[in-house]
Amino acid sequence: MASEIINPRGELSETELDPAFALHRGGKMAVRGTVPLRDAEDLSLAYTPGVARVCAAIAERPELVHDYTWKSNTVAVVTDGSAVLGLGDIGPAASLPVMEGKAILFKQFGGVDAVPVALDCRDPDELVETVARMAPSFGGINLEDISAPRCFEIERRLQERLDIPVFHDDQHGTAVVTLAALRNAARLTGRTLAELRVVISGAGAAGVAISHILLGAGVADVVVCDRRGVVSADRDDLTEVKRKLAAVTNAGGRTGSLADALAGADVFVGVSGGTVPESAVATMAPGAFVFAMANPDPEVHPEVAARHAAVVATGRSDFPNQINNVLAFPGIFAGALRVRATRITESMKLAAAEALAAVVADELSPDRVIPSPFDERVAPAVANAVAEAARAAGVARA
Amino acid sequence: MASEIINPRGELSETELDPAFALHRGGKMAVRGTVPLRDAEDLSLAYTPGVARVCAAIAERPELVHDYTWKSNTVAVVTDGSAVLGLGDIGPAASLPVMEGKAILFKQFGGVDAVPVALDCRDPDELVETVARMAPSFGGINLEDISAPRCFEIERRLQERLDIPVFHDDQHGTAVVTLAALRNAARLTGRTLAELRVVISGAGAAGVAISHILLGAGVADVVVCDRRGVVSADRDDLTEVKRKLAAVTNAGGRTGSLADALAGADVFVGVSGGTVPESAVATMAPGAFVFAMANPDPEVHPEVAARHAAVVATGRSDFPNQINNVLAFPGIFAGALRVRATRITESMKLAAAEALAAVVADELSPDRVIPSPFDERVAPAVANAVAEAARAAGVARA
Repeated sequence: MASEIINPRGELSETELDPAFALHRGGKMAVRGTVPLRDAEDLSLAYTPGVARVCAAIAERPELVHDYTWKSNTVAVVTDGSAVLGLGDIGPAASLPVMEGKAILFKQFGGVDAVPVALDCRDPDELVETVARMAPSFGGINLEDISAPRCFEIERRLQERLDIPVFHDDQHGTAVVTLAALRNAARLTGRTLAELRVVISGAGAAGVAISHILLGAGVADVVVCDRRGVVSADRDDLTEVKRKLAAVTNAGGRTGSLADALAGADVFVGVSGGTVPESAVATMAPGAFVFAMANPDPEVHPEVAARHAAVVATGRSDFPNQINNVLAFPGIFAGALRVRATRITESMKLAAAEALAAVVADELSPDRVIPSPFDERVAPAVANAVAEAARAAGVARA
Repeated sequence: MASEIINPRGELSETELDPAFALHRGGKMAVRGTVPLRDAEDLSLAYTPGVARVCAAIAERPELVHDYTWKSNTVAVVTDGSAVLGLGDIGPAASLPVMEGKAILFKQFGGVDAVPVALDCRDPDELVETVARMAPSFGGINLEDISAPRCFEIERRLQERLDIPVFHDDQHGTAVVTLAALRNAARLTGRTLAELRVVISGAGAAGVAISHILLGAGVADVVVCDRRGVVSADRDDLTEVKRKLAAVTNAGGRTGSLADALAGADVFVGVSGGTVPESAVATMAPGAFVFAMANPDPEVHPEVAARHAAVVATGRSDFPNQINNVLAFPGIFAGALRVRATRITESMKLAAAEALAAVVADELSPDRVIPSPFDERVAPAVANAVAEAARAAGVARA
């Protein structure tokens, strides 16, 4: 891919003509001081000797770190570069532009300060140790683009160990936005979540998390498919993660291919990057929802899907109903940080999805089951709902 | 210390009246995006899909990370909280206000973006591993407030392993500014560095680094004292660091106490936090220099020292000639980052000291052997000198 933009002499050529490269030159973010540093008096408060009094107070009462440092509004965006966008395993340095992008989205949409941290290690034990050691500096950990199944274990172990929220956005951000879109699609067509049969294509980070949040929200029949078809308990080729998934999904005991599963299904959720033929979509139940979220190429083209479905969503900004994580993670962390939550519970994710859906509940149409990423009502609504849910769950410290 | 500012009910009382606490509320820094994020078009360049092209280019040509991310202008300010200001071992969280302060000084004085990273680990192996794993995200590592002798090993091992500068400011920043002040004091009084006999009180991070830079700059006779007196090769109570120090200092083979060493000495450099009686200062050679840099209480009060010395400097802003690290580290990193230096060599430190001294070389007086921290000529002069020295040393990559 990059080779096409580098000429034979090894110099950048088209790169310089690509507006993405022009925009990235020098990076996309900076830090700034928020206190004056004009004279010796300022320095004596922000640095020595004044700062020592603040340090001593925190040493004595550790919770004061939230009051007197930027920790309480700051998230580390942590990756190992093992599963970056559609690029796969490109390593930590090459993943930095994505982490910076994520960091500025945190700031722009949620008012949350975020720091890109691309780690040069792969072993889950080492990743957990490294992030745990850095944790005193941050109010939350957003895990990003870490490959499955390592991502599940890493998130779980970190959350068990730390008293700040640990959130793998590729799982839960996607799950929250998907649930919000599904809620509104159901609302629009007069159905309940409980009566929907959902088929998810993809048993990676997003597929697993979407399965769990849909079950938590009351969807009774969730069928997950991987490349070999329905993830069912009778298969002998399942990883541990998929075995657990099979145990809680597929209440109908289905087997067979994705196409088999789609026949008569109400909802297709694609997070696989594969393709689904129109013939399979055509076998879905009347009034179906097709969420074809693979990027940049949806599993089925939205115009093709629309011939058979009542509601169509994708991951792309150039079609209606974009399932974009930026609708979730800025508000979720803003709300969690505001109340100094120790973790992000299932109830907080469900509340985020509910609040996100509610933003456009009075404006629903088949092309509008989810707000635009630039809808300014979104982050405050999500943050308020998440903060309230944190209090209700007993994980708030403020 | 903190207990005095917390009333019996455990509420903050005087804290709220202390302007240092008021200033620290919410922290002292923030991040900001430097690219527009107004609409879907902006998002498609700064984030998906445009960002993927930049990531792919870096994956193919790793050096492009310096062009297209904030790495090339960003330093991690790393501590374990083991030796914070005068407070000692207060741990990572309580050290955060100092690291934030350092970060905003980097920005304000050197235009360098800096991120506070307070690590929850102590073992040197673990510290080295952790920082090395984070390194892809940063253009340099500023080690801060890590206790001796661990700081020496940690810095050395990290620099051996990484291709970005690793700089323990408590050592080298202090050393650079001290050398600059000494150069100008010598210039003012018509002497050369080679003819000065220097006594350093303190064999910790700063004392060791000052010894090395002074020897590197041509001072022939450096005597270091710890609490037990002159660090001399015949002592059997020396740590490994002090044995090495004894091997390169104390050319005159002195023994005895600090007071013994001071008799007839030209220069006193105090980085110990101890005290020196006036009677000892009075025994120094005529035209002596007294740099009593302990904070907040200089080893000898500057007004007392001035009765016997030609030039007096301290670490405090309320006396003339403040030896303040902020004169060095912002410019040193700004220069090193500008040329993408792989390390900060001894020649770069010497060049920094020379440039710093030169800023006020035409304005010298006993009360002005070093510029004010707010002298805007300082950081650019230091940065230019460091960048040039990096090129000369062959450690520049741009």
